[in-house]
Amino acid sequence: MKITILFLLLSVGIAHAHTALSLTRKLQFPDVPGYKTLKCDFHMHTVFSDGNVWPSIRVEEALRDNLDAISITDHLEKLKHAADIPMPDRNRSHEAAVKAADGTNLIVVQGTEITRSMPPGHANAIFISDTNKVLVDDPIDAYRAANKQGGFIFWNHPTWIGQKPNAIAELMPMHEQLIADGLLHGIEVVNEDTYSDEALQIALDNNLTIIGTSDIHGLIDWQYNVPAGGHRPLTLVFAKKRSAKSIKDALEDRRTVALIDDSLIGREEHVVPLVEASLIVHKAAYVDKNNSTVLALILRNATSVSYTLENTSPYNFYTHTDVVTIPAMKDTTIQVKTIERLKELELTFRALNVVTAPNQHPEISISITVDSE
Amino acid sequence: MKITILFLLLSVGIAHAHTALSLTRKLQFPDVPGYKTLKCDFHMHTVFSDGNVWPSIRVEEALRDNLDAISITDHLEKLKHAADIPMPDRNRSHEAAVKAADGTNLIVVQGTEITRSMPPGHANAIFISDTNKVLVDDPIDAYRAANKQGGFIFWNHPTWIGQKPNAIAELMPMHEQLIADGLLHGIEVVNEDTYSDEALQIALDNNLTIIGTSDIHGLIDWQYNVPAGGHRPLTLVFAKKRSAKSIKDALEDRRTVALIDDSLIGREEHVVPLVEASLIVHKAAYVDKNNSTVLALILRNATSVSYTLENTSPYNFYTHTDVVTIPAMKDTTIQVKTIERLKELELTFRALNVVTAPNQHPEISISITVDSE
Amino acid sequence: MKITILFLLLSVGIAHAHTALSLTRKLQFPDVPGYKTLKCDFHMHTVFSDGNVWPSIRVEEALRDNLDAISITDHLEKLKHAADIPMPDRNRSHEAAVKAADGTNLIVVQGTEITRSMPPGHANAIFISDTNKVLVDDPIDAYRAANKQGGFIFWNHPTWIGQKPNAIAELMPMHEQLIADGLLHGIEVVNEDTYSDEALQIALDNNLTIIGTSDIHGLIDWQYNVPAGGHRPLTLVFAKKRSAKSIKDALEDRRTVALIDDSLIGREEHVVPLVEASLIVHKAAYVDKNNSTVLALILRNATSVSYTLENTSPYNFYTHTDVVTIPAMKDTTIQVKTIERLKELELTFRALNVVTAPNQHPEISISITVDSE
Amino acid sequence: MKITILFLLLSVGIAHAHTALSLTRKLQFPDVPGYKTLKCDFHMHTVFSDGNVWPSIRVEEALRDNLDAISITDHLEKLKHAADIPMPDRNRSHEAAVKAADGTNLIVVQGTEITRSMPPGHANAIFISDTNKVLVDDPIDAYRAANKQGGFIFWNHPTWIGQKPNAIAELMPMHEQLIADGLLHGIEVVNEDTYSDEALQIALDNNLTIIGTSDIHGLIDWQYNVPAGGHRPLTLVFAKKRSAKSIKDALEDRRTVALIDDSLIGREEHVVPLVEASLIVHKAAYVDKNNSTVLALILRNATSVSYTLENTSPYNFYTHTDVVTIPAMKDTTIQVKTIERLKELELTFRALNVVTAPNQHPEISISITVDSE
Repeated sequence: MKITILFLLLSVGIAHAHTALSLTRKLQFPDVPGYKTLKCDFHMHTVFSDGNVWPSIRVEEALRDNLDAISITDHLEKLKHAADIPMPDRNRSHEAAVKAADGTNLIVVQGTEITRSMPPGHANAIFISDTNKVLVDDPIDAYRAANKQGGFIFWNHPTWIGQKPNAIAELMPMHEQLIADGLLHGIEVVNEDTYSDEALQIALDNNLTIIGTSDIHGLIDWQYNVPAGGHRPLTLVFAKKRSAKSIKDALEDRRTVALIDDSLIGREEHVVPLVEASLIVHKAAYVDKNNSTVLALILRNATSVSYTLENTSPYNFYTHTDVVTIPAMKDTTIQVKTIERLKELELTFRALNVVTAPNQHPEISISITVDSE
Repeated sequence: MKITILFLLLSVGIAHAHTALSLTRKLQFPDVPGYKTLKCDFHMHTVFSDGNVWPSIRVEEALRDNLDAISITDHLEKLKHAADIPMPDRNRSHEAAVKAADGTNLIVVQGTEITRSMPPGHANAIFISDTNKVLVDDPIDAYRAANKQGGFIFWNHPTWIGQKPNAIAELMPMHEQLIADGLLHGIEVVNEDTYSDEALQIALDNNLTIIGTSDIHGLIDWQYNVPAGGHRPLTLVFAKKRSAKSIKDALEDRRTVALIDDSLIGREEHVVPLVEASLIVHKAAYVDKNNSTVLALILRNATSVSYTLENTSPYNFYTHTDVVTIPAMKDTTIQVKTIERLKELELTFRALNVVTAPNQHPEISISITVDSE
Repeated sequence: MKITILFLLLSVGIAHAHTALSLTRKLQFPDVPGYKTLKCDFHMHTVFSDGNVWPSIRVEEALRDNLDAISITDHLEKLKHAADIPMPDRNRSHEAAVKAADGTNLIVVQGTEITRSMPPGHANAIFISDTNKVLVDDPIDAYRAANKQGGFIFWNHPTWIGQKPNAIAELMPMHEQLIADGLLHGIEVVNEDTYSDEALQIALDNNLTIIGTSDIHGLIDWQYNVPAGGHRPLTLVFAKKRSAKSIKDALEDRRTVALIDDSLIGREEHVVPLVEASLIVHKAAYVDKNNSTVLALILRNATSVSYTLENTSPYNFYTHTDVVTIPAMKDTTIQVKTIERLKELELTFRALNVVTAPNQHPEISISITVDSE
Repeated sequence: MKITILFLLLSVGIAHAHTALSLTRKLQFPDVPGYKTLKCDFHMHTVFSDGNVWPSIRVEEALRDNLDAISITDHLEKLKHAADIPMPDRNRSHEAAVKAADGTNLIVVQGTEITRSMPPGHANAIFISDTNKVLVDDPIDAYRAANKQGGFIFWNHPTWIGQKPNAIAELMPMHEQLIADGLLHGIEVVNEDTYSDEALQIALDNNLTIIGTSDIHGLIDWQYNVPAGGHRPLTLVFAKKRSAKSIKDALEDRRTVALIDDSLIGREEHVVPLVEASLIVHKAAYVDKNNSTVLALILRNATSVSYTLENTSPYNFYTHTDVVTIPAMKDTTIQVKTIERLKELELTFRALNVVTAPNQHPEISISITVDSE
């Protein structure tokens, strides 16, 4: 691997000779070994329930954000605009999004929000084929109807203060039954501007898929302050291919990471390869050819999150304390005191903006081959 | 028309009356209980040694950066421009700076850099009165001459790879003797773009004052990328008054914090009050008057560094993981899950961008009184 | 007037002592003698015809843009989303906007777009009370129905290449008849990203009100590139009061200026006072008290358009050629060579970004009283 | 993993392959037919007279501004820092600049400022070889000494209020004699932040070379507000080759344009080709293939000045009034109403930011070939 990286970095160096990383709203995350990293938002609303835009705006927002897949998940039971949009056919919002996405490469997955009081609260069913059939009285029946269509179902905002005044996600017997029966497969650890340690623990304890969503009702640009550099929450899905089928497989296999601001939340086996693929050693050379043992690294962060790393290596730094920020979409130079002149070395960091369990941050490692002189 | 214009102008005046935090190059740090926090840079060069500008530019840079005090510390022994600037009188660069600062409130402290091979390496003598008298053959004699004038002397860039190829600061017998004899009082833990864990440990072990400096030779704006939001390194000095005398007292009493990028390095007793004064609870109210136990805080960071905080409180957050960034010169909203409705509470954090010893980050606490409804 | 301005400028100087003009998306235009300058957009679409958003988004866009009044003018005859939004009652989009604007001070005027082939093409009827009644077969009858309700009617985009492939606005007999019968009162000289010299000439020749509109279907932020500093087209209405009634009176009296980018289009009697109110002499002092006859002016442009001015004064400038740009929301210093020391003077300019007839730019004048020393 | 990384990096390379105009401080002007357009600043000061920086800073500023040639023109008679820099050899500032420029491609031309009371006032002699020989008592003798070395001499800031309180450039008998004797060859029409109509007229009437200079004493970045997008004044020189010799030939042949802010001042034969080379038709296509006669042009302005153009064509525009701004370093779309479908056409404009004589702006033309469909 080291040789390959060296080789590659040289060629990238050339490719970038007269270019530069640029900070745009287009979200960027690298693929990881064996999987494509797909940027997905599976929770959003339109005028077909209580949102404020036609599905075409959701498609355009997603394209501007460089997303791979979305699902329009209008409420089944909460038609705010029913006086004007009676919606006898609940498939209409999905159909409008599909039409708007025509000619683009955005994947639009059919979905809906089953909107009940707690328990079970709200849940999204995605990868369904006929939304009308999910509109039944009993909540459990709704889950069953969605599952019958091959739907993937996740619990929405289990911390929502509208239903949980203390904002603590808690599994109730009905949820336990749904999970036991294989009717509930994921949980939002991130929803809109909220994150929940307890929801993450529930995901880990119950083998649920970790989900992050925007739950947007208004405009992405306004709510997430896009012109100032903000971005929506997402689920990063590690899929064999860039297809709806592969995304569903990945969700069922729990291959996801939730994103909110600069925080990445996921199981160690998913999030560590992502971080390690995100931080590329763009250059590694001793600062003075003959004498010094100070190694200058250019770490390229070609992703849309800034990393905050706590050094756990046997080496410390000439230019930084042990806590280093690697800004999004930028090259950062770190000088490492290697004591001896090395040909290869490994740096290890605790990635503080990455969460694998409540208050737990994984160790990541960066293998470096010093550039030949 | 007169009346109309009058009204127009009045309303324009009103329209601009609101205040906002604004990100400028003017560095901002709050005072701490009992002390003024003074922004000082005690290491810089001009055409009078190997720098590239007249001292007046150093004064103007300092004013633009909102500094309280500087010292022009041209090398005694390294007159790069001697062919053109013979400098028979080594007080000239200080005098030129004093003249340039006339009419401003910038404090200009006389200084020089005693520039020797290792040991003892380079050192700055500041608060001296006649630089010529420090120009003697033997390095120890130079330290003595500076001390005789009441000078405060600190070891410069003990990690400099020009003198220490491994960049590891190390106390040699000559340094130990200088310290033992009371001739050396401080050490640069931060110099230009470098930071040293070992220098910090030497300061702590030997009761030396912690210093951070720019060591600028070219232009502050270019080297520290000021237009892009960068800033020079500094020593923050906690002084009884804003005066040269008080600064010297503070240096002798080791009341300093070194600044580089967003990192603050200092003894716990100095750095913790600074952080706690930096983060102001601008608002604290439960998000929903009757039911919820989610408390919305607006934390105002009216300083020029971004804080990276790891939550160690008994509460966790509705909107963040346990690692929270509080950007410089901005208000940040954090929602806290307090379980019960409280009237007062205390949040505690490990301040990761703050260093009190190698790899050690202090715990800071923020006391909150919930706004009465 | 001179004394008054002097007096006022002194007080404004104080009011601004520690503030600054700031460039935001909030559009700013000063009132003019005798009238309030109201920022109005009377042409926009929602999901109720062929737009992509609920009326609430139009309200929020208007509030963010600092508008005073809008009208939702969904097509009567072009219900793109009729399959989902059957709209038996054509007043619904207006009602939804009124509801969304509740609690704000935005004025929402009822309107609709009468959407016919050419002639007469499209027209907006605003200040109507029952949109349903305008939905009749014959276009002339529709104009009559709108007029019967007290509606104000303007011809939309007479240059639209969908109906006029050469984009030349041209009055056809039907339009002449509508005007003669008092059924058509205004004309869009600015629509979306287009401006028409011919439409302006038609307005002048036929005593029609000059209108500028966004005709927005998608999002203002995207179409007009708001994050990069762009803004929507507008009609500036000079009204006695900030009320719907006063706006209608002003429209009927043709007291309007159309805005597109930095261009202002209007009759000389409306646009000249606006420009003269926009450019405030913030300071006027000779640069050197005793000798020089160079007068330094600070011109404050507290409006959202940049002015391009061609000097026609008897004086020329020390710092500029005869063509001067006064950027939006900024202070610009111009030094004038007055030959003698004056106490008062008048500068005159041809305002090149202001259009009073095709290729005609009005002369504006700025009266200056030199600050007493 | 190797293969994955390979693909990742390749795709990153591709992602960055697209080009875009970007606004940097590097000044950009296109070559014109037959000549290279060289960006030159022939008036600047260092610590060797009354400036505040070492010549190396002037070199670095010039490189950052993308200049082709500079001349350090320290005052012969005004050694502000003589107490410290006695300067027995007046060639020293030039030599220091040459040394600093070593290894770069910046052309450094030897020069000096002959600094006398009016008449003749100040003048720069450039392309000299021994500055010491120009230091003589009689001003006329100084001009003769410079000419004897092959020097090119231009009158500095003939409007300077220090010598002309009314700031009106005026030829006095001594100047007339100098010109008649071939001792004075050019005149600053632009100096620092000033422009002079009268100086331009003197240049035209007396066949002098038009010069623009920064006359910088402090820092270019501060004085010309570079971080906010400002730039220094310049002389654009149209030279056969990029060499000192060719620059001198061009100056003697008066092939120059002076630049201040967005204004270009020069003789019509020099400035018109420059403007026409600056505005490139990047795309020209009818907006609708079959019907419309509206032609969409993308005008690419790959230069560092914004153009303000007044349309004098037989066509008018669909998207603009007759006054159009073409911002620096951007593509601007203008839609032209051509009445018929044309294969070629010519647009003509009065270039308002370009001055060929007091209050005179040249007509420029843009030839367009419509893209084949």
